[in-house]
Amino acid sequence: MSERAEMKGRVTIPTDVDVVPETMELVKRWGADAIRDCDGTDYPEELRHVDAKVYSTYYTTRKDNTWAKANPDEIQQMYIMTPFYNAAESELSIHLMNHLYPDMLKVNSRDDITRWWEVIDRTTGEVVSTEQWEYSDETGNVTIHDAKAFHDYTVSFLAYIMWDPVHMYNAVTNDWKDVEKQITFDVRQPKTRKFSMERLRKYIQDNPHIDVIRYTTFFHQFTLIFDELAREKYVDWYGYSASISPYILELFEAEAGYKFRPEYIIDQGYMNNTYRIPSKEFQDFQRFQRREVAKLAKEMVDITHECGKEAMMFLGDHWIGTEPFMDEFKSIGLDAVVGSVGNGSTLRLISDIEGVNYTEGRFLPYFFPDTFHEGGDPVKEAKVNWVTARRAILRKPIDRIGYGGYLKLAMQFPDFIDYVESVCREFRTLYNNIKGTTPYCVKRVAVLNSWGKMRAWGNHMVHHAIYYKQNYSYAGIIEALSGAPFDVKFISFDDIRENPDILKDIDVILNVGGAYTAYSGGGNWADEKILTAVKRFVYEGGGFIGVGEPTACQREGRYFQLSGVMGVEKENGFTLNVDKYNWEEHKHFITEDCTGEVDFGEGQKSIFALPETTIIKQVDKEVQLAANDFGDGRSVYISGLPYSFENSRLLYRAILWSSHDEENLHKWFSSNYNVEVHAYVKNGKYCVVNNTYEPQDTVVYKGDGSSFELHLEANEIIWYEI
Amino acid sequence: MSERAEMKGRVTIPTDVDVVPETMELVKRWGADAIRDCDGTDYPEELRHVDAKVYSTYYTTRKDNTWAKANPDEIQQMYIMTPFYNAAESELSIHLMNHLYPDMLKVNSRDDITRWWEVIDRTTGEVVSTEQWEYSDETGNVTIHDAKAFHDYTVSFLAYIMWDPVHMYNAVTNDWKDVEKQITFDVRQPKTRKFSMERLRKYIQDNPHIDVIRYTTFFHQFTLIFDELAREKYVDWYGYSASISPYILELFEAEAGYKFRPEYIIDQGYMNNTYRIPSKEFQDFQRFQRREVAKLAKEMVDITHECGKEAMMFLGDHWIGTEPFMDEFKSIGLDAVVGSVGNGSTLRLISDIEGVNYTEGRFLPYFFPDTFHEGGDPVKEAKVNWVTARRAILRKPIDRIGYGGYLKLAMQFPDFIDYVESVCREFRTLYNNIKGTTPYCVKRVAVLNSWGKMRAWGNHMVHHAIYYKQNYSYAGIIEALSGAPFDVKFISFDDIRENPDILKDIDVILNVGGAYTAYSGGGNWADEKILTAVKRFVYEGGGFIGVGEPTACQREGRYFQLSGVMGVEKENGFTLNVDKYNWEEHKHFITEDCTGEVDFGEGQKSIFALPETTIIKQVDKEVQLAANDFGDGRSVYISGLPYSFENSRLLYRAILWSSHDEENLHKWFSSNYNVEVHAYVKNGKYCVVNNTYEPQDTVVYKGDGSSFELHLEANEIIWYEI
Repeated sequence: MSERAEMKGRVTIPTDVDVVPETMELVKRWGADAIRDCDGTDYPEELRHVDAKVYSTYYTTRKDNTWAKANPDEIQQMYIMTPFYNAAESELSIHLMNHLYPDMLKVNSRDDITRWWEVIDRTTGEVVSTEQWEYSDETGNVTIHDAKAFHDYTVSFLAYIMWDPVHMYNAVTNDWKDVEKQITFDVRQPKTRKFSMERLRKYIQDNPHIDVIRYTTFFHQFTLIFDELAREKYVDWYGYSASISPYILELFEAEAGYKFRPEYIIDQGYMNNTYRIPSKEFQDFQRFQRREVAKLAKEMVDITHECGKEAMMFLGDHWIGTEPFMDEFKSIGLDAVVGSVGNGSTLRLISDIEGVNYTEGRFLPYFFPDTFHEGGDPVKEAKVNWVTARRAILRKPIDRIGYGGYLKLAMQFPDFIDYVESVCREFRTLYNNIKGTTPYCVKRVAVLNSWGKMRAWGNHMVHHAIYYKQNYSYAGIIEALSGAPFDVKFISFDDIRENPDILKDIDVILNVGGAYTAYSGGGNWADEKILTAVKRFVYEGGGFIGVGEPTACQREGRYFQLSGVMGVEKENGFTLNVDKYNWEEHKHFITEDCTGEVDFGEGQKSIFALPETTIIKQVDKEVQLAANDFGDGRSVYISGLPYSFENSRLLYRAILWSSHDEENLHKWFSSNYNVEVHAYVKNGKYCVVNNTYEPQDTVVYKGDGSSFELHLEANEIIWYEI
Repeated sequence: MSERAEMKGRVTIPTDVDVVPETMELVKRWGADAIRDCDGTDYPEELRHVDAKVYSTYYTTRKDNTWAKANPDEIQQMYIMTPFYNAAESELSIHLMNHLYPDMLKVNSRDDITRWWEVIDRTTGEVVSTEQWEYSDETGNVTIHDAKAFHDYTVSFLAYIMWDPVHMYNAVTNDWKDVEKQITFDVRQPKTRKFSMERLRKYIQDNPHIDVIRYTTFFHQFTLIFDELAREKYVDWYGYSASISPYILELFEAEAGYKFRPEYIIDQGYMNNTYRIPSKEFQDFQRFQRREVAKLAKEMVDITHECGKEAMMFLGDHWIGTEPFMDEFKSIGLDAVVGSVGNGSTLRLISDIEGVNYTEGRFLPYFFPDTFHEGGDPVKEAKVNWVTARRAILRKPIDRIGYGGYLKLAMQFPDFIDYVESVCREFRTLYNNIKGTTPYCVKRVAVLNSWGKMRAWGNHMVHHAIYYKQNYSYAGIIEALSGAPFDVKFISFDDIRENPDILKDIDVILNVGGAYTAYSGGGNWADEKILTAVKRFVYEGGGFIGVGEPTACQREGRYFQLSGVMGVEKENGFTLNVDKYNWEEHKHFITEDCTGEVDFGEGQKSIFALPETTIIKQVDKEVQLAANDFGDGRSVYISGLPYSFENSRLLYRAILWSSHDEENLHKWFSSNYNVEVHAYVKNGKYCVVNNTYEPQDTVVYKGDGSSFELHLEANEIIWYEI
């Protein structure tokens, strides 16, 4: 790579009609080689012939209300379950639109409601006969006759999406006035499909200056619902409940060979969110959607290519069904994927995608008034975002970085422009140093849950990179792994069932999450195949790290099904009778770098150790960290581990210890946990990186164990030849 | 009642051969009218003709090793399950006596082990064929052939009890030297039964000075096991696993009409402790035992009466099968029950027993060296014990109080002798004031769980009145109720199933405990009958108070099955997608007397409120206290409530609020929650009682709402005429 390469390229910037000179300035200063528009901005005429690629956002499912209104039967739909209603009398009326934003949804009574809706007695779980209820378009109510006294009822129904949820979100958040509410039409359905392909061709024809069609995205919005006050009511970045229509469901039914039930999507109202252990029917449906979405997306990509343009997919918004880590994805033929980078995990969500020519990360902060206002500190946000993402980039780089929003706002913060200039330079340097090599991996670890690779890096994620009190103590593990020198796989229980030998290529298995969720696995731990495969793996020398309520599934005398492996169990009342004498804490390899009290986040209550287990930390007789031997293998229990540099080190040591490799700790290693070392042996380079905003001193250990002292400035990254 | 009555009577004291004059002094000073011996003391010759009743402890099942050794087949037995053993190879040997105290237990291979033992594959839950394993008396091992790789196995086996667990406990605790280990023989079996009746007659004949035979107790020890270091290993004050033998089990089989399985007792190793929702088979077995124990105990009581003596039962030790709150108990014909008083709940455990002439409470501290040593403060312990128990006595008095231990030790603490003298006087006064009346009850409350009246007042109890971190936040409710002006019932789910109308006599239902335990009810909340009965009860105006994880049972879209009634739900990951806006706290009637932060004990994590619920207290977005309307009824959710005077008041107010009776708060009421008012309308008396060890000022409200200010000295109780 030439010196020149580090001066320009791999950077995308936003533009607008009112910032033409500024755009040109940034092309130069940041070395940008691509320019984009955004939702709410326009591409300026003057920049049509600039020496940079031009990206244009393209919305397959909206921005044409004329079409939508002319084809109301092909407006997108979603399944919705009402709240629970108590039947105090024998006639029970349920107003379907209660607590829903009236302009966003419209009940679909056009299709056969006796086939596509379901009224369920949630007290018994039984479906109420369609003869026992009726719907009135006039009142908007479902009325149940002969309701059973004091039973609870729900109605699962279909609603048209009359305002695209992302468009509504942007309009509400930015207080857009007099905006026409964009209706979402369904490209999967026959008329709209034909129309959409023509529409795409026309768009490309009308916009010859565009190089890259940035699809935002294809056909189905992740689940996003607003309440009567226009507040977010329900959000699932992985949700499939807005990817349906009777048209699609009939095709699914034909393929699956069994009768579809709304409950397959509704799932008791939990809508098959990723915490739910997926049912066979839901997995069938996802498979069907993946295949069909890929097929149709390919049509659009083919058109794009035919017209001489690149096709880039935005990983978000209408991305449901694309599933970039699944096999069907490659068949779409995309040139690129771009996604928003909230942290290391979301960076890997993009950079680990295979089957595209390049990946791009959209960095924070967006140039919006929430950050770029008087008194705002966009440099700080940019630093946090960059340093957090950089850890992950050093393991698996994206190919490009970029920014979004109103450039005009950013230009008012010269410090910010300076800082991002340095980021762009730093990114190009590191990209040149590491691209094309696999960084040195100390261990091969596998995160085991119900989803496997389909939810790789997205474990414990509800909305994109958003904090939740109930999951940050688990998500911290994934974030730590995103920038750690391990070869990380995400495997499912089904993967083990299909071929237990996959465990042979793994050093340490992690099982992370709350009881009975898809992440810890619930009933999968009642399966003899899973239990024996994992036990054999550990017994024969493998490592097992359980976090939170790993392997929890109450049966046969145990809550943690692998309590014999982990050496810990949960006191749920059933074993209060058993005297517990093992409470003494022990110094341990795993916590040797911890400076004070370990932050276990939400931790766990009532965990106790079996007699032979080594307790590393207990708080008020509740075990938070413990180590145990099982056969030739080792296990570590951690109650929770929010992301921090210190905790990341703890996890690193836990992985080394559980795989019996303590003696190799001092290879490509920094004594100070705020600093990390990454080696790219094939390229003959390694770097030392300060992840903090303060200077750091450390001792750096090279691959041969030799070491040297080093001082690093805040955020600094230093490259060395091996 | 005469003045004289308050000078003497209703008090039992211990004696020994070396404290004859001291005994006589206490008979006078404490007004004792009964004298007793203890395990480890002897009754002095000189006191054989004293003017007081003489109690003598009588052990039906031990203190005759000659008999036991001559009849080894009739030594008592218990079921034991080994720990889980992993099968790393196809042959797995399990040493049965691992981690058991060798002198206490002896494997019973005399009876047909293929019938009475069970080897279980805990990975699959399947019973291993008896052809696949064998036991060697020589090695003490069960060896399993063709064990499945990486399956876990347990052995359920029978062991003879070669050292009575209570005798062992006393010997170990008091460091008795050279004591002959008393073997426990089984009075239920034919030879020993015959022998025991003769032995009893002989004992009475030989001890004509005795007035009261104090049975300690009848036939079966609660489960108590010691480990290899003679430490307590397993304790269940309600445990039935030491009440079995092939002889008994064959009779049970014949009655039940189905084949017995060891697993009915073993219960996955949980041994059917009271936290387990009892299986049908275990309930059948308990019923059988109740009937058989009552029948045989009656034989002994009849002999006692025939010989002109009273029969008193100690509520403890070998009390299993007697079940004083169940119907069979009355048929035994006992004159009295005596039990240890650890707190208000255990006081009610004694005083609520029906079908005996009188009840007696053994107060703490026992005159043992652990308290009565230099620097010890027995007065303090006595005060705590008395004041705690007094609350409950004022609701439902025992008829007598008493003490135990070495009198010689107590005499060395003159302050203690003085204090107990005042206690005895106070007890007699209050007894005279309230006996024979029902105290004024503000509300009728029912604690609903899987056990109902059988475990009345013993809810959340593992070992007698012992603290456990996992249950004090629930036991606090029972303790508060033990001294509160309510008519308290304990009802079971089966009670409701049999007759939902029992709820008509109840104002407020309480459901208290951890998820899936017998106390909250687990799967019972999947029963339409239970759900509709309780919902109807509340909807029509009843109160419901849920504590901890009430009605928890994950199904049909809910974790708390009555979340619609309580207005709260637990975030277990499945509803992270749902936005939650209701977090504002509200002032409320329930907490009006709380002075600072409410102590919720262990509390709960991840509880959130539904939109219409009134949150009274949330901590870091986890609801701890909330109120909700459901139809005409009201519900209160409390995350946990350890016992304290302040929390007791909170519960009082919650009960009043949930039954719509706020306006009657100021009747028989003290403005200061450290002080309580109890009214005995029939006797025309009421008392005001200071539960603390400091003086208190309060405003006392009488039944007509009129009030007066009052100052009380520490611990003081003041009696008034109405």
